[in-house]
Amino acid sequence: MSGRRPRASRRGAPLQVPVTAGPEPSPLYTQVYREIREHILSGVLRPGARLPSARTLAADLGVSRNTIEAAFLQLGAEGFITRRVGAGTTVASSMGESAPFRARPRRAGTPRAEAPRSAALRLSARGTLITECGLAEIAGDHPAGPCATEVAGFPVRTWNRLLARRARRAGIAPFQAADPAGLPALREAIADHVRVTRGVRCEWRQVIVVTSTQQALDLCGRLLLDPGAVALMEDPGYRGTRAALLAAGAEVRGVPVDGDGVDPEALAAHPGARLLYVTPSHQYPLGVTLTLARRLALLRWAAATGAWILEDDYDSEFRYDGRPLASLQGLDPEGRVIYLGTCNKVLFPGLRLGYVIVPPGLVAPFTAARRISDGFSPPLVQAVLADFISGGHFAAWLRQARQHYAACRDALVASITTQWGPAVTLGPSDTGLHLMAHLPDGAPDAAIAEAATAQCLGVLPLTRYLAAPSRRRGLLLSYVAGTPARIPADVAALAPAVRGRRGR
Amino acid sequence: MSGRRPRASRRGAPLQVPVTAGPEPSPLYTQVYREIREHILSGVLRPGARLPSARTLAADLGVSRNTIEAAFLQLGAEGFITRRVGAGTTVASSMGESAPFRARPRRAGTPRAEAPRSAALRLSARGTLITECGLAEIAGDHPAGPCATEVAGFPVRTWNRLLARRARRAGIAPFQAADPAGLPALREAIADHVRVTRGVRCEWRQVIVVTSTQQALDLCGRLLLDPGAVALMEDPGYRGTRAALLAAGAEVRGVPVDGDGVDPEALAAHPGARLLYVTPSHQYPLGVTLTLARRLALLRWAAATGAWILEDDYDSEFRYDGRPLASLQGLDPEGRVIYLGTCNKVLFPGLRLGYVIVPPGLVAPFTAARRISDGFSPPLVQAVLADFISGGHFAAWLRQARQHYAACRDALVASITTQWGPAVTLGPSDTGLHLMAHLPDGAPDAAIAEAATAQCLGVLPLTRYLAAPSRRRGLLLSYVAGTPARIPADVAALAPAVRGRRGR
Repeated sequence: MSGRRPRASRRGAPLQVPVTAGPEPSPLYTQVYREIREHILSGVLRPGARLPSARTLAADLGVSRNTIEAAFLQLGAEGFITRRVGAGTTVASSMGESAPFRARPRRAGTPRAEAPRSAALRLSARGTLITECGLAEIAGDHPAGPCATEVAGFPVRTWNRLLARRARRAGIAPFQAADPAGLPALREAIADHVRVTRGVRCEWRQVIVVTSTQQALDLCGRLLLDPGAVALMEDPGYRGTRAALLAAGAEVRGVPVDGDGVDPEALAAHPGARLLYVTPSHQYPLGVTLTLARRLALLRWAAATGAWILEDDYDSEFRYDGRPLASLQGLDPEGRVIYLGTCNKVLFPGLRLGYVIVPPGLVAPFTAARRISDGFSPPLVQAVLADFISGGHFAAWLRQARQHYAACRDALVASITTQWGPAVTLGPSDTGLHLMAHLPDGAPDAAIAEAATAQCLGVLPLTRYLAAPSRRRGLLLSYVAGTPARIPADVAALAPAVRGRRGR
Repeated sequence: MSGRRPRASRRGAPLQVPVTAGPEPSPLYTQVYREIREHILSGVLRPGARLPSARTLAADLGVSRNTIEAAFLQLGAEGFITRRVGAGTTVASSMGESAPFRARPRRAGTPRAEAPRSAALRLSARGTLITECGLAEIAGDHPAGPCATEVAGFPVRTWNRLLARRARRAGIAPFQAADPAGLPALREAIADHVRVTRGVRCEWRQVIVVTSTQQALDLCGRLLLDPGAVALMEDPGYRGTRAALLAAGAEVRGVPVDGDGVDPEALAAHPGARLLYVTPSHQYPLGVTLTLARRLALLRWAAATGAWILEDDYDSEFRYDGRPLASLQGLDPEGRVIYLGTCNKVLFPGLRLGYVIVPPGLVAPFTAARRISDGFSPPLVQAVLADFISGGHFAAWLRQARQHYAACRDALVASITTQWGPAVTLGPSDTGLHLMAHLPDGAPDAAIAEAATAQCLGVLPLTRYLAAPSRRRGLLLSYVAGTPARIPADVAALAPAVRGRRGR
């Protein structure tokens, strides 16, 4: 190696070439090229300045002449140097006084200043909003750990078999561009599913495939809200929604939720509101179901004010007792409800497929927004999901997962009832993958959740979801990664904190 | 079937149950449920009104009593009716005067009014922008037809093998949630690739995985531009960029492009501009390369004004003659350049993976924006792409594709030169998957492109890409779906139009 190591120039010229010029090992000629380029850019080598001949430079640097020729070739191709027979090699005069940052000579391989210079960043106002609300609001909203798919036995093999079959048989189709609104086969499968199971009224063309509820909310915010518009959501409520609405520049206001769901009486306090976000089937995080009377009141409000209702039906597939209530969308003859569903929760988070079902007049705007936001979803995985649904695997998985989670729910309810004492009251537990355990007013739910050492339960404090000042306290217990066998131990581990702090 | 067909009520009650109540065949009890629900919602059945007994109704409708009981059960669960021993079945009084749209009784199964009512849609101002610019600007920008992957022999089997292996061996990881910025393995593979081949200077953490150049542009627009901000782009230029910038609410202005690329002298006319979008390696659509002197001038401008430069390096992997020029990003010591790359073009459109390489200070904002926009890209396909790159398949495919497209380029240039006559001059052809054939000023390029009946060439008029009034005319010839054998026939088919109309 030492024979190839470039030596310092005998002339005192500043051409020193380190063996590696950057994080990656690169060919020797690249290192020479970079070093000369740096010298030109930093102004050490001025326009018109003559470079040593390739032969001389090769000798100076202790490398082969071919290495120097290759570097010169590249420098010439990029316009840094000019080579003419008789005139030798000179720094291109076309650069004029163009060396950009003469004051700051910098060596190749030296990392540039990496410190964020906030002042220089000059984000847009909405960029600042996005940066500030994005991470803080959403990160950690869902507990880390194994996902539903793992513990409940998602049919990974079946999925992979369908995936392999599609990839093999479909020829070129999965590789090509696709409709921003989604693959028709998937849109039809989704429409069939929600019509039958959720009472949604739609044509398949009203189904717009998105990557996630988050993207659906983002598209809604951008299409329906101008900066400063008033957007209403449940309080307590889902923080991802709050983040998306804030990012859209909306003034986000909370509407109180009680045991019957969001309170329609409170809507009158917000004239001019453009949008209301609700989770009617299973309120997030309280778990209550919006009553029929209130559903109808919301629809009357929307029809009267021209506001939109976003119905997020994120986990209604997991209902254990009785039949699920039909969707709000299915009650709405006026087309004011936008229905959001996701397959990332009921199947697996890495899937990245969800849907938004819009009134016919919004199909074109949502398609345009999807196109302009990120084009379209990968056709291959869309086709696999359509196969999974139409092949009956989706329904079979739902049955299996429902059994598993019903057993989890039973274990959770039983353990809490016996171990946490009478001061804790449980929210509804007939649906979904989480349960709200209400603590006495003012209890330190955040501290309890913070100190929790649960093995499989996700534990988050109710205070996290509250917008208006409130003394309501509680623990959101997510059993998405739970098993009936492990849940009782987790509940027991939390018991001292819950009981000990009770009444303080 | 006729035995199960519901009969009209003998009492003249309005309960008529069609055999199918919607687009999907549904169980009979669902049809009964829907019909009664409609009558309640439409106000035909008032709160407190008594329904016939299940037995009577079953006889009336000619269905089994169990069917009616099932319908009542669902109606009860949803709060529409109340059943009490002795009191019979009544419409729930809790609904109060809540039937929402009394004026419009509507029958189950009748499609609701589907006509878009623009006035009622009340999109946001940016929603209108998105709708108006999204489809019109982008749709058809790239010719339809077979994609590169098909004609150039993308190693579909290798891809599918890697996909199947990842899916099989990776266990649960591809199913779980992932970092919005992308899988570290993929970010590292991309960083290595662009450092070596494009002279980009970055740490892997500066690489943010996105779905597409479109998403990168969208995130840039939202993070960096406030409504009304001035954003500059090449004229002629890529319409997808124009759409994304318009959608961000920017005032989009064109900067003229000549044979040396975009003209830095013209930037002084736009003080306060926040951003400049350029395609330095291979200007879209003209195909010229931005000279070094101009690159340096752009960097000085950005450093002096605090503006951002978006460098879209969309197809520099396809260079046929000489070595590609290093990226603008690699020349920039100030961190004002945001580098955009996509794998959807060089691999296949359905992949939906690209990247944006940002200065360190923008990593957090872009990560937050990705999180809030759509979460993250599917981990499985990210892992497969990382395997494809690190396994050497990417480099091998590039070599093969370059050979194919160089042959296409040769065929195209040779055919045009011999068949289209001297009035047509060709733009640079050393890079990329398209070529600009300049026509005489004022030639009807749009009409020629419109009438083109090419088999494998994509033909689009230069006028499509012009922002400012101009007499420049030309044909953008895309050979992404071309083969050397078929291209001459396409050129010949266009010759009469090109020659015949010349000089008009």
